[in-house]
Amino acid sequence: MIEKLHGDIVFWLQQMGTFVKSCMQENISVTTKTSLSDIVTNIDCEIEEKFIHYIHTHYPSHSVLGEESASHFKAYNQGYVWIIDPIDGTLNFVKEQKNFAIMIALYIDGVGQLGYIFDVMNDTLYYAIKGQGAYCNNHKLNKPDDLDLKHSLISLSSCFIVQEHSSPYRHVMTNAQGIRMIGSASHSMLAIFNNHYHAYISAKLRPWDFLAGLVIADELGIVYSTADGSPLPLWEPTSLVIGTPHIHHEIISSYKVN
Amino acid sequence: MIEKLHGDIVFWLQQMGTFVKSCMQENISVTTKTSLSDIVTNIDCEIEEKFIHYIHTHYPSHSVLGEESASHFKAYNQGYVWIIDPIDGTLNFVKEQKNFAIMIALYIDGVGQLGYIFDVMNDTLYYAIKGQGAYCNNHKLNKPDDLDLKHSLISLSSCFIVQEHSSPYRHVMTNAQGIRMIGSASHSMLAIFNNHYHAYISAKLRPWDFLAGLVIADELGIVYSTADGSPLPLWEPTSLVIGTPHIHHEIISSYKVN
Repeated sequence: MIEKLHGDIVFWLQQMGTFVKSCMQENISVTTKTSLSDIVTNIDCEIEEKFIHYIHTHYPSHSVLGEESASHFKAYNQGYVWIIDPIDGTLNFVKEQKNFAIMIALYIDGVGQLGYIFDVMNDTLYYAIKGQGAYCNNHKLNKPDDLDLKHSLISLSSCFIVQEHSSPYRHVMTNAQGIRMIGSASHSMLAIFNNHYHAYISAKLRPWDFLAGLVIADELGIVYSTADGSPLPLWEPTSLVIGTPHIHHEIISSYKVN
Repeated sequence: MIEKLHGDIVFWLQQMGTFVKSCMQENISVTTKTSLSDIVTNIDCEIEEKFIHYIHTHYPSHSVLGEESASHFKAYNQGYVWIIDPIDGTLNFVKEQKNFAIMIALYIDGVGQLGYIFDVMNDTLYYAIKGQGAYCNNHKLNKPDDLDLKHSLISLSSCFIVQEHSSPYRHVMTNAQGIRMIGSASHSMLAIFNNHYHAYISAKLRPWDFLAGLVIADELGIVYSTADGSPLPLWEPTSLVIGTPHIHHEIISSYKVN
C-alpha cells in the first residue's frame, strides 16, 4: 500500500513540476492575502485543485488539508490525511522563480508516513517513507553533522527582524556562525537535510508548512519543538525550532520570553 | 585593447571555475580571519595567486588589489588597477557549496571599465563593459523594474540583526515586501541585476566586495551610495546602499542615524 501511494505521489509531483515550469513564462496572477508579503497565485490554487482531484479520484475515503482550501484548523488524528502546500515560498516563486517548493505529506492516524518536498526548479525531489530513510531523488541522505551553534548557519524567518524590542533569539543571532533569511520554510529545512544549515527558526508556521518536512526530519535524526521546547502541535499554527540535536538544545536553552 | 582584456578575463574565469569545481570534492582548508564568520580557505588564496600570476605575466605594468593579499587601503585613481575577490561568500562556499562567486574588475584612472561576477556553480557569468551594456553569459540584461519598497525584496547583510538597539533600517525592514539575508554581496547584487531583489544594504564592505558590481550597476541604471546618501568611496571600507532609483531614494530618505 505504501509503495503504491509513493508511486502515485511521485507521478503526481512530476506532473505538477511540469505544470509549474510551463507557467513560468506566462503571466502569473498574484493576489494578496493578509499582507503584501502573504500572497497567493493562480498557480498555487491550480496545483492544490489538481492534487485534491487526484486524491479524491484515487483515494476517495482520504481527507485533505490544503493551504489554499483549508477554512479552519482541526486535529486530524484519525484516518488517512493528505497535507498539501502547493507552493511554499510563493513570494520567491513570483520574484525569484526559484527557492520555492511543492510539499505533500500523508499522515495516518496522526503519524507522518510519507513526506515530499519537491524543489521544482532544481528538479530535485526530497522524500521520506517512515522507517525507510530519507532520500534526495534516489540517493539516500545521511544524517547531518551534529555541530554547535558557532560553527553553523541558522535560517530565521524574517519576522524576527521587524520586532522593535529585543528578539528572544538574540543569543542565536549573535552566536551562530551565520544567519540566513531565505523566505521559504521548505528550503530552510532542505538546507538542514543537506548539511548546509543546522537549524531553522520560525515564529509562526501552519501545518502545511512543516508536516512534510517532519517526516523527513524523523528519518535523519533531526529534532523539533515549539520555541519554548514543547512538543510541536501538528494541526495548528505554531512556532518551530528544528535542527540537529546539539543546536536544537542550544537554541531552546537560550530562548528568552520577553 | 578592451576587447583583448575582456577575452583574457573570460578565459581566466573559465579556468578558475573549473579549478573551483574540481576542489569541491576535496578537503578544503578553512582559516578564521577576524571572527568565526570571517573565514578564508586555501581555494580563495590559490585563485587570487593564479589571477595575480596571470595579470603580472600579461600586463606587467598593471596594479592589483586582491582581498587576500591587500595589506592596506589606498586610492587607486591612476593607471590600470585590477580588483580581485577570489571567492565572495566564502562561508556559503564552505557550507552550501553554492551562493558564492568569483569577482574581478578593471578600473582605469579610477573609473570602472570592466566588471565580472562569475556564479561558478550555475555556470553563469555576469559582466559589463563600460558603455556597452551588461550581460548574463551572452544575453544582454535589461534594466530592472523601478519598483517601490513595499513591492520589493530587499537583501540585508546579517550584521543588522545583531544590533541590540533599533536598526537604522527599521523602516526598510517593516515596509519592504520581504527581507532576505543570503550571505553574499555578489549574489545580492546579482539578484538586483536579475530583477529579483531591488536593493541591497550592507553596513561594511570592502572595495573587492563591490567594485565589480558597480561597473555592472552603472550599465543598468542601478544607483548606489553610502548609508547616508554620500558618494561611495571606492577604495576604502564603506557602508553600501545599492538599488533601483526609486527604492534607493526611499532607503536613503528613511535612514536614521542612531
